[in-house]
Amino acid sequence: MTQLDFAKQGIITKEMQQAADYEGILAEELRDLIVKGWAVIPKNIKRTFYVRAIGKGLLTKVNANIGTSTDHADIEEEMKKLKAAIYYGADSVMDLSTGGDLHAIRKMVLEHSSVMVGAVPIYQVAAELSAKNKSILDMSENQLFDAIEQQCEEGIDYITVHCGVTQHSAKLASKQKRVMGIVSRGGSLLASWMNHHKKENPLYEYFDRLCEIAHKYDVTLSLGDGLRPGAIADATDAAQIEELVILGELVKKAREAGVQVIVEGPGHVPMDQITANIIAEKRICDNAPFYVLGPLTTDTAPGYDHIVGAIGGAIAALSGADFLCYVTPAEHLCLPTVEDVRLGVIGSRIAAHSADIAKGIQKAIQQDFEMSQYRKALDWEGMFSRAIDPDMARARRKKSEDYEEKVCTMCGKLCAIKTHNECELL
Amino acid sequence: MTQLDFAKQGIITKEMQQAADYEGILAEELRDLIVKGWAVIPKNIKRTFYVRAIGKGLLTKVNANIGTSTDHADIEEEMKKLKAAIYYGADSVMDLSTGGDLHAIRKMVLEHSSVMVGAVPIYQVAAELSAKNKSILDMSENQLFDAIEQQCEEGIDYITVHCGVTQHSAKLASKQKRVMGIVSRGGSLLASWMNHHKKENPLYEYFDRLCEIAHKYDVTLSLGDGLRPGAIADATDAAQIEELVILGELVKKAREAGVQVIVEGPGHVPMDQITANIIAEKRICDNAPFYVLGPLTTDTAPGYDHIVGAIGGAIAALSGADFLCYVTPAEHLCLPTVEDVRLGVIGSRIAAHSADIAKGIQKAIQQDFEMSQYRKALDWEGMFSRAIDPDMARARRKKSEDYEEKVCTMCGKLCAIKTHNECELL
Repeated sequence: MTQLDFAKQGIITKEMQQAADYEGILAEELRDLIVKGWAVIPKNIKRTFYVRAIGKGLLTKVNANIGTSTDHADIEEEMKKLKAAIYYGADSVMDLSTGGDLHAIRKMVLEHSSVMVGAVPIYQVAAELSAKNKSILDMSENQLFDAIEQQCEEGIDYITVHCGVTQHSAKLASKQKRVMGIVSRGGSLLASWMNHHKKENPLYEYFDRLCEIAHKYDVTLSLGDGLRPGAIADATDAAQIEELVILGELVKKAREAGVQVIVEGPGHVPMDQITANIIAEKRICDNAPFYVLGPLTTDTAPGYDHIVGAIGGAIAALSGADFLCYVTPAEHLCLPTVEDVRLGVIGSRIAAHSADIAKGIQKAIQQDFEMSQYRKALDWEGMFSRAIDPDMARARRKKSEDYEEKVCTMCGKLCAIKTHNECELL
Repeated sequence: MTQLDFAKQGIITKEMQQAADYEGILAEELRDLIVKGWAVIPKNIKRTFYVRAIGKGLLTKVNANIGTSTDHADIEEEMKKLKAAIYYGADSVMDLSTGGDLHAIRKMVLEHSSVMVGAVPIYQVAAELSAKNKSILDMSENQLFDAIEQQCEEGIDYITVHCGVTQHSAKLASKQKRVMGIVSRGGSLLASWMNHHKKENPLYEYFDRLCEIAHKYDVTLSLGDGLRPGAIADATDAAQIEELVILGELVKKAREAGVQVIVEGPGHVPMDQITANIIAEKRICDNAPFYVLGPLTTDTAPGYDHIVGAIGGAIAALSGADFLCYVTPAEHLCLPTVEDVRLGVIGSRIAAHSADIAKGIQKAIQQDFEMSQYRKALDWEGMFSRAIDPDMARARRKKSEDYEEKVCTMCGKLCAIKTHNECELL
């Protein structure tokens, strides 16, 4: 039985109670969102951790992608990334490893993660073929489903499956029509395979088989956007929307099969198109939780894409996106370091929290209110206690000249708060 | 004669031509915006530099605040900040110094800045009084106007004057009504003085005198928001809007006097209130260029306020704000370092550029289009040439393992672009 099955039967599980407590809402409310498919609780039946829900009206959640690549694989470093991601407030991590001992890395992540863990099974297939000097064209359909089953069996809580890359939708993303073509790794691998074998995408064709596996372990399906735009110029084009329409159909099928399901979204999107993207997903996919990568509001800031992603993510979350996949400063340049992971998580946390305030979520508003009260009182320890990164705030202040004073070096003796406090005492 | 005087007479000045060329618009168009007061070209008649206009439909401009404080004053460091701000793309710098030899620092900034320079004259008065162990309460009205005239005479291009802090509006910002009270240095100094002397704000009462000085040097007045909210909880309150109404009246007076004028805005504003703030300013102040600080969409991210400011600034700019004052990671903690200045400018540049794309400004869109073409071709030098910070992008890539390869360490052999490029060659 999945969380969705239980919810449909009116049962409130321990997980629903936990997730509702975290949000500060009634478990019944959350259960009703799950019944409709408007919220999910990604958690493999094989795992134990303090769960969080993702969905309509809930606190915006943040995912951090970690993992090795074919050119850089160090399990110790991945362990540090995992710890940094969780320490700085990620609600989820995805292990996207494609280099080194994939099984050992995944095992490490699953053992040490106190938050939900996602993965992209086709990466494993592609990496294993590549290690044998074969290409994705050598993949068999069974091989792909075996990898999916293996990862579900090992305890992964949600998997990205690029089911909407079909013969038709992929053609719409061809280089004749787009500046950047297909920029999703999973999407490009599948499109390449489909093009070579003149076959339909097995994840689309045998979607029922996928649902069966997912149902067995209560693994949440994250319907990947293999055709997401990889350039501002390609945003919200026919390929992207065609894929979304296909995903909308699959959302329905998954729900009917008792499988929890969310939908992934772009990518590179100019600011004025972000809200339209969220509305389209919510309408076409019947309010399935929306999981967006970024979005990135410009292509021109490699080295600072955590800032770009914070802009896009904040607007997306306020428009209704439920789950933000972080983007790190390393995006478009190299594999992220531990420091990149830290900055990526903080960027997305700021975006999520900014949106949650504007969405009127009381838990978020209260934190800012208390911060401001401490500021007015020039109570620095109080301020640190309400900061997104207390360590950084404390360290910056400690390094400045007037650490012992009530004011800070920004305004020094001309501190406006001090001036105003004294004025009102007159 | 000011740029506004010339424009009213139908004359296109060298400055209008220069600024129009930079935007890629006709000088006539810019002149007509200046006549209406919807655009300004801040430039003191005593200075020579390649000017830029600020206003409706133009590229969003970015200001970097530099300057010493009473607790930290190092002219060498300020020189480095100035250079960093301009190198990373600031369209303007403000010298907010309140410590050390104020005259020498201002002279250095004016001599070395290739962009417009702003200042806040009341800071000088307060700093000089403080250095003599006096307080702002000892300020005479003439002393304030003398400081203003001195700075205009020295060549400052625009000055912040907190004319809208009146007896009535300041009362609305009292601590009984607000969490944070008054957080503007200039605003708090004036409110304190007014409260003590039971007098009206001289900058409001003698606004004509201010206009006379400004007109003489063609100094643009930046009507400061001394009552801007300093907390999410205080945003868009009566004090803030009352001040804006007063500034709207003063905008009209300044324009009639042939003085170029812009209006300053918040501050700490939740995401869902930003657009309302811009619309209110544009309506109440008859489309006077709007110069916003941040806005900051959460109070809780000291150490990362450049990211918070990028979120707020991008939304503000897309809603019509014309000029973004950066916020650095040091905000709320200490005086910014050179590195803080760098990060602050980049954050605001990303915000401005993201908004300019969404506003449909062709110059901005083209840069992203070219970046994406280079990405598709895996042409790294091409990508760097279109990056907001080419040095950072090149350095990050150079440090990674496959610097010699076409792909990057993020995806390595599974690079989606490579996969898709090869697939389409089949």
